[in-house]
Amino acid sequence: MAMARRLNQGDIDFEPRFAELLTIKRESSVDVNDQVAQIISDVRKDGDEALFIYTRRFDRFDLSTANLTIGKEEVDAAVEACSEEDIKALELAASRIAAYHSRQKPEDVRYTDDQGVTLGWRWTAVDAAGLYVPGGTASYPSSVLMNAIPARVAGVERVVMVVPTPDDKINPLVLAAARLAGIDEIYRIGGAQAIAALAYGTASIAPVDKIVGPGNAYVAVAKKQVFGQVGIDSIAGPSEILVIADCENDPDWIAADLLSQAEHDVSSQSILITDNEEFADAVAITVEKQLGASPRQDIAGEAWQNNSAIIVVDDFTQACTLSNRLAPEHLELAVADPDRLLPHIRHAGAIFLGRYAPEAIGDYLAGPDHVLPTARAARYASGLSVLDFMKRTSIIGAGEEALRRIGPAAVTLANAEGLHSHAQSVALRLKQKP
Amino acid sequence: MAMARRLNQGDIDFEPRFAELLTIKRESSVDVNDQVAQIISDVRKDGDEALFIYTRRFDRFDLSTANLTIGKEEVDAAVEACSEEDIKALELAASRIAAYHSRQKPEDVRYTDDQGVTLGWRWTAVDAAGLYVPGGTASYPSSVLMNAIPARVAGVERVVMVVPTPDDKINPLVLAAARLAGIDEIYRIGGAQAIAALAYGTASIAPVDKIVGPGNAYVAVAKKQVFGQVGIDSIAGPSEILVIADCENDPDWIAADLLSQAEHDVSSQSILITDNEEFADAVAITVEKQLGASPRQDIAGEAWQNNSAIIVVDDFTQACTLSNRLAPEHLELAVADPDRLLPHIRHAGAIFLGRYAPEAIGDYLAGPDHVLPTARAARYASGLSVLDFMKRTSIIGAGEEALRRIGPAAVTLANAEGLHSHAQSVALRLKQKP
Repeated sequence: MAMARRLNQGDIDFEPRFAELLTIKRESSVDVNDQVAQIISDVRKDGDEALFIYTRRFDRFDLSTANLTIGKEEVDAAVEACSEEDIKALELAASRIAAYHSRQKPEDVRYTDDQGVTLGWRWTAVDAAGLYVPGGTASYPSSVLMNAIPARVAGVERVVMVVPTPDDKINPLVLAAARLAGIDEIYRIGGAQAIAALAYGTASIAPVDKIVGPGNAYVAVAKKQVFGQVGIDSIAGPSEILVIADCENDPDWIAADLLSQAEHDVSSQSILITDNEEFADAVAITVEKQLGASPRQDIAGEAWQNNSAIIVVDDFTQACTLSNRLAPEHLELAVADPDRLLPHIRHAGAIFLGRYAPEAIGDYLAGPDHVLPTARAARYASGLSVLDFMKRTSIIGAGEEALRRIGPAAVTLANAEGLHSHAQSVALRLKQKP
Repeated sequence: MAMARRLNQGDIDFEPRFAELLTIKRESSVDVNDQVAQIISDVRKDGDEALFIYTRRFDRFDLSTANLTIGKEEVDAAVEACSEEDIKALELAASRIAAYHSRQKPEDVRYTDDQGVTLGWRWTAVDAAGLYVPGGTASYPSSVLMNAIPARVAGVERVVMVVPTPDDKINPLVLAAARLAGIDEIYRIGGAQAIAALAYGTASIAPVDKIVGPGNAYVAVAKKQVFGQVGIDSIAGPSEILVIADCENDPDWIAADLLSQAEHDVSSQSILITDNEEFADAVAITVEKQLGASPRQDIAGEAWQNNSAIIVVDDFTQACTLSNRLAPEHLELAVADPDRLLPHIRHAGAIFLGRYAPEAIGDYLAGPDHVLPTARAARYASGLSVLDFMKRTSIIGAGEEALRRIGPAAVTLANAEGLHSHAQSVALRLKQKP
């Protein structure tokens, strides 16, 4: 049976074993840098033709100019193929995600300060965003909504989707989600070649300014390599959850929460911190029981066995301290009064409050984005938001009077830094010697 | 004499020559990837000892545990060594930068929606930030203020500075700026080894969560390589300015503005767009005249000759269209009514309004940050801000009633994605079949 490691904060070897959880190697690191560089170079040189060749090779699909685009009729047909229940659920998710993200729209600022200097900033959307959607089993409609809706809310005029169709297969719900998110430009490509096409453009595909969305190692490395030519979102690592739970919880609920991350990938990580030994035992047993009944028990079992842990602490203040060291992507506070713990939590991608807020509602339709920082990146990074599709331009204005007040100090500093023309550009306007 | 290229929108070869400006190779690309990887690996393995060895080799300074830190006394002495005028100018800059950035502090949000779901987000500062300051001629006190003050305003508790002291030399104004910015932890190291120490820590230096600040190729590559272990700011490229000016400007002022970017680096780019041939001629002549008198004429002349341009257009609507394609780091609107053009500008790092707002005041003390996106990154990126030192945590809370309303759709979507435990984690709480 799969068993997560068990730690007790009282144990003499607690610190090294906890530290191991922070650094545990969860991702296999295949080096695809050179291969990806070659693919990008080919797409830049040969454009569409390179897309056709790589798609034949990797996706076993005979791509051509004629079928590169997934058009309106094909999306219509996909929507038709979906069950009404699934479409209704997607619609609820889309409207809730849009409602939450709408509150993130930033405000422009403009004011004149006490020296008469006009200051402020202005937010504008990027012109075009590209969304990568994986093919095959990891082709999730929820991911389409979570990546595309913030772009739409930001006001991005052109949102493009790329999705490979290996062996000519595509998940119809993915196309239905694209329709709901207002995407009307979809290309049947994937892998590093799709990222290269989005970044540099081809005869058929205009380039974008920002690329988001999850993908395999090739996609992740390609995004890193085109960064600078375009903006990218963060590179997503394996999913993870930390549940802080008291003994009043139903072990069945908590076990399901832990397995809901473990089932994503063999590299996922699930951790329970509780203050009660018996509850810890009960959850451990229940996880094993649920694993036995899970259609994804191979994946979830491996993640649970290799990367996961149940930790018993003396009190919840200690739990918060450990949580801050883990800086988890998802944190459930399954306790009677989660708001009491909240001020002690410094680093987490998303926090779920109370016993009736399982992480899965955040994956689909609570409203906040499910693209969140992993692998302790919550120490310095945030989840995807409307701001990722906008940029802020500073505004600086001055008339003669204002420049007369602040200009001389600028001349002083420019001279101190040995930047002659900087000094002169101000001094000339003040008819001052630089 | 150095002469920038001259373009006229009416010319038959305008488009290819303008396109060349967008793609002009401005940075030499030495490949230091392997060297940097070795340095980082050595610092991770040997810690302080590696810092000592590399500092002796690269900075010709005999570093040891005893002199690794630049302490209070040394900073006191540096401040004493500065002129009162310089200190006063730095103080004005610091207070204006702090005032502007204080307005960027984001607000937390929390609300309950119509389904009874608690939603929102919370901003928290990173625990520790590291600021890289170059040594030698590029050691700018203004850069210390522009990088450290946003961190302070964000509420970062520990702000660390690293600065190399090649041949035991340091600019006292840099230490004075550090004092003004509230930095009290300073290490005498630079290069890739300093970035490695900040990211991974050594016996003497605790690691940070975010690294910012400009540096040479080694520093830039090291930041890319440690990204993920810590957050980093953007990788700064050579500076650039676009001036949109009518013929009512004094050519002397505009020439100085153009040269104030050109003098930064031989890779800098300065572009003037005007609607008046005679004014274009006058500026061209004035630039040459000013160049002759500039102590930095070698640098500025090369940048002006190789990367820069004067462009004549028919009207300012065209000027804005070209500006959006250039997406400049700095944009001056030196026209009678800059606010009339503003709505047409989509992409720029900072915009300077009117004839009395030379870019140099933005470099030093207008208030906004001088760390701005270069090389057309303003299409998707923003300048440094308080938000770069904070991260946003999503908040999701639900009671039984709220989960009963939104939960069933989450179960539907989880099942559609084949994620059994996701469905179960919701269904169990609803006593529903997953």
